[in-house]
Amino acid sequence: MDRRSFLKTSALGGTATAAATLAAPAYAQGKRVLTMVQSWPRGFAVLDDAATYLQEMVGAMSDGQLTIDKKAPGELVGALEVFDAVSSGQADMYHSADYYFIGQHPAYAYFTAVPFGGTAQELTNWYHHGGGHELHSELGEIFNLKSFLAGNSGSQSGGWFRKEIGSAADFNGLKFRMPGLGGKVLGKLGASVQNIPGGELYQALSSGALDGLEWVGPMADERAGFQEVAKVYYAAGFHEPGSGLTAGMNLDVYNDLSPQHQAIISNAAMATTHLQLSETLANNGAALARLQSQGVKVLQFSDDVWDAFGKASAEVMDENMGDEIFAKTRKSFEESMAASSSWIGKSDGFYVAQRDRVLGNG
Amino acid sequence: MDRRSFLKTSALGGTATAAATLAAPAYAQGKRVLTMVQSWPRGFAVLDDAATYLQEMVGAMSDGQLTIDKKAPGELVGALEVFDAVSSGQADMYHSADYYFIGQHPAYAYFTAVPFGGTAQELTNWYHHGGGHELHSELGEIFNLKSFLAGNSGSQSGGWFRKEIGSAADFNGLKFRMPGLGGKVLGKLGASVQNIPGGELYQALSSGALDGLEWVGPMADERAGFQEVAKVYYAAGFHEPGSGLTAGMNLDVYNDLSPQHQAIISNAAMATTHLQLSETLANNGAALARLQSQGVKVLQFSDDVWDAFGKASAEVMDENMGDEIFAKTRKSFEESMAASSSWIGKSDGFYVAQRDRVLGNG
Repeated sequence: MDRRSFLKTSALGGTATAAATLAAPAYAQGKRVLTMVQSWPRGFAVLDDAATYLQEMVGAMSDGQLTIDKKAPGELVGALEVFDAVSSGQADMYHSADYYFIGQHPAYAYFTAVPFGGTAQELTNWYHHGGGHELHSELGEIFNLKSFLAGNSGSQSGGWFRKEIGSAADFNGLKFRMPGLGGKVLGKLGASVQNIPGGELYQALSSGALDGLEWVGPMADERAGFQEVAKVYYAAGFHEPGSGLTAGMNLDVYNDLSPQHQAIISNAAMATTHLQLSETLANNGAALARLQSQGVKVLQFSDDVWDAFGKASAEVMDENMGDEIFAKTRKSFEESMAASSSWIGKSDGFYVAQRDRVLGNG
Repeated sequence: MDRRSFLKTSALGGTATAAATLAAPAYAQGKRVLTMVQSWPRGFAVLDDAATYLQEMVGAMSDGQLTIDKKAPGELVGALEVFDAVSSGQADMYHSADYYFIGQHPAYAYFTAVPFGGTAQELTNWYHHGGGHELHSELGEIFNLKSFLAGNSGSQSGGWFRKEIGSAADFNGLKFRMPGLGGKVLGKLGASVQNIPGGELYQALSSGALDGLEWVGPMADERAGFQEVAKVYYAAGFHEPGSGLTAGMNLDVYNDLSPQHQAIISNAAMATTHLQLSETLANNGAALARLQSQGVKVLQFSDDVWDAFGKASAEVMDENMGDEIFAKTRKSFEESMAASSSWIGKSDGFYVAQRDRVLGNG
């Protein structure tokens, strides 16, 4: 799909009409303000943390010559409309998770997370040293975007449920929120899967519109308050083992930046992932303990359930293999992940097991 | 120890005399060149990679207004003299591993790695969100330094040996290179431990001056050529589960930088860790396979050996507890590591085990 045909066929709706008035002014008196639409409400832990770090770093490193004006959902466009808004030039950049946009192109799943895919570290290895960023840029050419990973959730929780999951059959008929290819996997297990923006999830779970949901992990989930309306929490999930967040810029806007400001954007994106992921992982343990103290039962899915996730995931991945870019991206990603994990298991993995054994942890 | 007494008592030798001629010129025509002495020869994988990324990022993000002039060992001072050179003002900054400087202060061990300590991710969590950077700065006040982690080796290999290690007793009398507190641990097991700079290790192992050594990991070790002179390689080690590299600046030089350039330094340091660690981890698997194809036998230490490492490590750590800053740093680090690992094991750890089981890897 080329950009023109995408722009003709995509459901931009009324948002496209505002584009001309807002898009890409040149530098005014040496200063440039980038309007950034994001998929997260202000103050949302993990996700808005990353968007805010990016904003702060860019402003400080450019001495205020390049600044980011953050727009939360509803301030300019809706949470899931940010991709189309930036592609069309209505906004300069977005901060979101690219798997929200698998309807635009299925390969976008790889730039957030795929079922049984890489951890945050494995995604980073691939992105910067296994061809990932180049594939992200290639996809971006179709949609007039230049994208950078800027944030990572870490391995996402299996999610919130009202009842324990005894077998994969318990997903049948469950009204569950899960975006991306993971959601399609649960669909194979019979779940009624919906992609609802984060800011609307608490209400949906409270009202019974949802039977369950996955959001991010203990720190973000606690802030969202899900423990008030569901009490069963699965720790590990198959669906998002280390979800990248994306800062996606309109390609014309990006190309109009000076080389210095382009360098600031790309390096700030890396520093953002470093600073925000470590914050999330530093805080998840304490957040989980607080959730447990509020009566939340923390569980892991059984091997049988994991086997069912695995079987359905393979089917979903294979269904997308007719798309050339998806197939190329999958091959690149899987080769990199295999190379990464072959050493990480022998070093980090073996070390942590021995450390915890010797120190009596675990 | 305050800075004055350190400067009086430290063995700066002849290097201090040159300080007045080289230290801290102010910005000349808006531009500032930082002389950076580093502990690694040019082209040394992993370590010089990090130093080079830092140099490139700072230059690009400042539009050439702030640049780093890298000096390899011997060009200005020796590999292990960089700390004193920057402390005294002979050079503006260094790139090194702070555990080389436990003679200056034992707490510096925590800013590289300690035995049975944190992985790269756990170190990062502590450094940015558990008080680590603040403690690094507090130590720096003593020595007139402002320091930033800028690079990480990942979990370091157990090392190169001419013979297999059947039990902890095999370390008795072994001439082995291992810096930091890890080296003191091997000393407890009877090894004759030496700290030799990286650039001199190949020769020392070839000549028999050393019976064995640890350096970094497959990618860096292969580049150094140790497979040509030893054939037994232990994958996981107890001593450096994720070694941070440090960009340490002379505090007066740092304070003289504009807020913009200070922000560029601190964010470039984070981006450097992100970019270099992922490069290392993306390449270690393939490097290990190449080492094996050259006849290297890849092993893991037995549980008994790990137990001996654990016992000796606890003794070494406790011996330093008379120092107030060491004790404070240890407490801060261990609390952060425990909080991090309590969640990481349930999420990343459990996920990777299930993924590898379901996909039939491992």
